Amino acid sequence: MRILLTNDDGYQAVGIKKLYDELIKIAEVVMIAPERENSAVGHAITVFEPIRVFELKEGEKIYGYAVNGTPADCVKLGLVAIYKKKPDLVISGINAGPNTGTNIIYSGTVSAATEGTIFGIPSIAISISIRNSLEIKFAAEFTARLAKTIHKRKLPAGTLLNVNIPALPKEQIKGVKITRQGESKFKEVFLKRIDPLGRTYYWLDGGEDVYIDKDEDIDAIALKNGFVSITPITYDLTNYKYMEEIRDLEGIDLE
Amino acid sequence: MRILLTNDDGYQAVGIKKLYDELIKIAEVVMIAPERENSAVGHAITVFEPIRVFELKEGEKIYGYAVNGTPADCVKLGLVAIYKKKPDLVISGINAGPNTGTNIIYSGTVSAATEGTIFGIPSIAISISIRNSLEIKFAAEFTARLAKTIHKRKLPAGTLLNVNIPALPKEQIKGVKITRQGESKFKEVFLKRIDPLGRTYYWLDGGEDVYIDKDEDIDAIALKNGFVSITPITYDLTNYKYMEEIRDLEGIDLE
Repeated sequence: MRILLTNDDGYQAVGIKKLYDELIKIAEVVMIAPERENSAVGHAITVFEPIRVFELKEGEKIYGYAVNGTPADCVKLGLVAIYKKKPDLVISGINAGPNTGTNIIYSGTVSAATEGTIFGIPSIAISISIRNSLEIKFAAEFTARLAKTIHKRKLPAGTLLNVNIPALPKEQIKGVKITRQGESKFKEVFLKRIDPLGRTYYWLDGGEDVYIDKDEDIDAIALKNGFVSITPITYDLTNYKYMEEIRDLEGIDLE
Repeated sequence: MRILLTNDDGYQAVGIKKLYDELIKIAEVVMIAPERENSAVGHAITVFEPIRVFELKEGEKIYGYAVNGTPADCVKLGLVAIYKKKPDLVISGINAGPNTGTNIIYSGTVSAATEGTIFGIPSIAISISIRNSLEIKFAAEFTARLAKTIHKRKLPAGTLLNVNIPALPKEQIKGVKITRQGESKFKEVFLKRIDPLGRTYYWLDGGEDVYIDKDEDIDAIALKNGFVSITPITYDLTNYKYMEEIRDLEGIDLE
């Protein structure tokens, strides 16, 4: 099994390192990750600037590549130009902090896995529910187990898994739940401040989570209740159930 | 009717200017757009840096704001901190070039409209099928007509319209089609070059469109056939039809 491993926190982040250590026990792993933290870049790709690639070495051995780009760049460039053999899986993570609800559209972690899916490779995004978690070893072990399973059973075209793991000791984890994306999001506040030259600036302050969801099969709620949350997601954004309802717009006059 | 108008090509782009000129005939319009071109930023938001806002004036009148951020930043900051009254519509465009198929996940234009939808405001992304089109006046007029219609009939929660308009003279446009997002995308190539200091760099070359879709109700195909394409899209990425199929993953052993 060959795995392309990436993340959005950068190649030096604890999450990707611990995950690499677990995955090399079961697969050939090439890490292709951003050289710097890239949170909230969403599915940005770099088109106005050149992209540079730096070898990551341990002694003489190249174990991966750092890229001065976004998570989606890493996967796209990795699959098109760096990773000569096609990997069996793309894994993105372990992200420090959850990727649930509406917030996933801002997520570099999820977008990197989406990019793998676009290339037809089974892909998984992995996040742990709190930053600086001591429980990241369980998350890495669980991911390795999931990777083996997905390698065997595959995923259907256009679908990836968005996995969120509670930052709890293994024995407190209640189980695994297949979930749907909820509406939970950060309460958004912009700090308004004055810089040393007297000019105004704004800075987005994520603030606290707003839980507007209730159902137990919603990603953020399952996670809060102590379950590993696995949401099958897609990059087909079409709202199929609404197509008929807006058919009348075909009657808009062109003149 | 109040409209927040944005784009991803920046406030100086022809597309947003022509659209502004049409929309002020029917609504109060505030332009809140990036100060620079932002193509392919997807749903990136700015979290590591301050955001600055510059007033856009015509004589003494402030007609909008330029923001040193992404299209999603413009809408988020606009709705939270700048636009005191809640707008009735968020309109993003007119983008120079189509936003169809898989490519829409990279689109700053679409992401800006998505951001409006997240805030519960009916939102529309508008693109024209080729860059530097002379037919942008029709696209602007059509958008104004669509804006009036949507203001009356509204859109359901969580749904926005991704509109692509052919760059054709009005009399050659065949009609309006409600479409679904296709799989068409750019054939991706990375140019590999050597810089003046002898170091390698890569540069993404979009290359030509790959039409792997055939059906007439696919966005890119409708557009190619001379129709205005309207795709209802959502930010709920859950692949509902696949939830049952992966239920077995709930059985993965935690030990």
